[in-house]
Amino acid sequence: MSSLAQSFEFVDLPDAYFDEIETRFAPLTAQARRLVDLTIRSEADEADVAEAAELLRRANDLLERRTRPFAAGVRFNASGRAANWGNAAVGLRNAIAPPMQTRHGDDGVVRASLHLGAAYEGPPRHVHGGVSALLLDHLMGETASQFKRFTATGTLTLRYVAPLPLGPVELEGRIVSEEGRKIRVHASIAGGAGVAVEADGLFIVPRDAA
Amino acid sequence: MSSLAQSFEFVDLPDAYFDEIETRFAPLTAQARRLVDLTIRSEADEADVAEAAELLRRANDLLERRTRPFAAGVRFNASGRAANWGNAAVGLRNAIAPPMQTRHGDDGVVRASLHLGAAYEGPPRHVHGGVSALLLDHLMGETASQFKRFTATGTLTLRYVAPLPLGPVELEGRIVSEEGRKIRVHASIAGGAGVAVEADGLFIVPRDAA
Repeated sequence: MSSLAQSFEFVDLPDAYFDEIETRFAPLTAQARRLVDLTIRSEADEADVAEAAELLRRANDLLERRTRPFAAGVRFNASGRAANWGNAAVGLRNAIAPPMQTRHGDDGVVRASLHLGAAYEGPPRHVHGGVSALLLDHLMGETASQFKRFTATGTLTLRYVAPLPLGPVELEGRIVSEEGRKIRVHASIAGGAGVAVEADGLFIVPRDAA
Repeated sequence: MSSLAQSFEFVDLPDAYFDEIETRFAPLTAQARRLVDLTIRSEADEADVAEAAELLRRANDLLERRTRPFAAGVRFNASGRAANWGNAAVGLRNAIAPPMQTRHGDDGVVRASLHLGAAYEGPPRHVHGGVSALLLDHLMGETASQFKRFTATGTLTLRYVAPLPLGPVELEGRIVSEEGRKIRVHASIAGGAGVAVEADGLFIVPRDAA
């Protein structure tokens, strides 16, 4: 895991740079999330769908004029501001991410409230069990790291106790114990009918990141 | 879980209907996947990004002319053809889904090969641990059900043994044991450097679906 802890990239850029990029891409990402949803739910006729695809092709060609060659990576500056834009769970510029926005309480508890729509479906009208796993894994990693250390997921155990309807969901994670470089975290995701998935995770602080 | 097994919707429609819809939406979904990637990786200037967002808004307005009110659900017809278009892991019309395409071997082993790009990132240049969990959960569910019965995830245990670089990945799942309504499945996801995550799952056939 050693390379991972050191792959976060320091950049000598002011907070204003991060603000500018986030502002530039916010309306695009909002439309991209809307598109993901509509691509699933649309019942538009052949002509409208074909025209939409053509507009989209033109938009993509514009965006492709200048690109980062690979993935977004994670960049941070001297004031601690981080650009984690491509992250699959929380990335502001990733239309796959709901995005989940976490709240770190003074008590160390990490919480998130979000709405999961058509794109997160597994069984009809319910959240995909794997989407619950994705969100829990991410929130538990943040709970373990508390934004002050790098941690890697060691093991994750998920107990599916009830189906989770699409719609508003709540996540909560807390540290259960810390022993050397091992951090145990408990978390849950709940929806209308109560807790749907309970999770226990063991997170590790790699030797070179401790 | 009883309502879940019965929420799959029978529709009296020929295979040709499913073919027609899949054909209509395939170019759109391909552009939507491209957009998700470019929204993360683009370094286009302010004017190009704003123009792309406007094209996208127009595409969305076209798609929104007629929509299903809620999620896609899962529909199937008399010949067993199923439309699982919105599924977060395998949905053909879901730009969040890579989509994973599974191969069911005669030996009961279920395999999938896919490419995970910028949109699936967690640690820099690596697959998000939660994305591995999402794909494993789905493949293991299919392994348990073998497309012949409904199964629900009971528990899922994931052991993260190595980081998984973005790029080509392989998944494999097999049934370890079956006892009454309990099915145990083992699976893994591997990349360039070998196996990254090992998973054990307990899947349940609900009483009303047995």
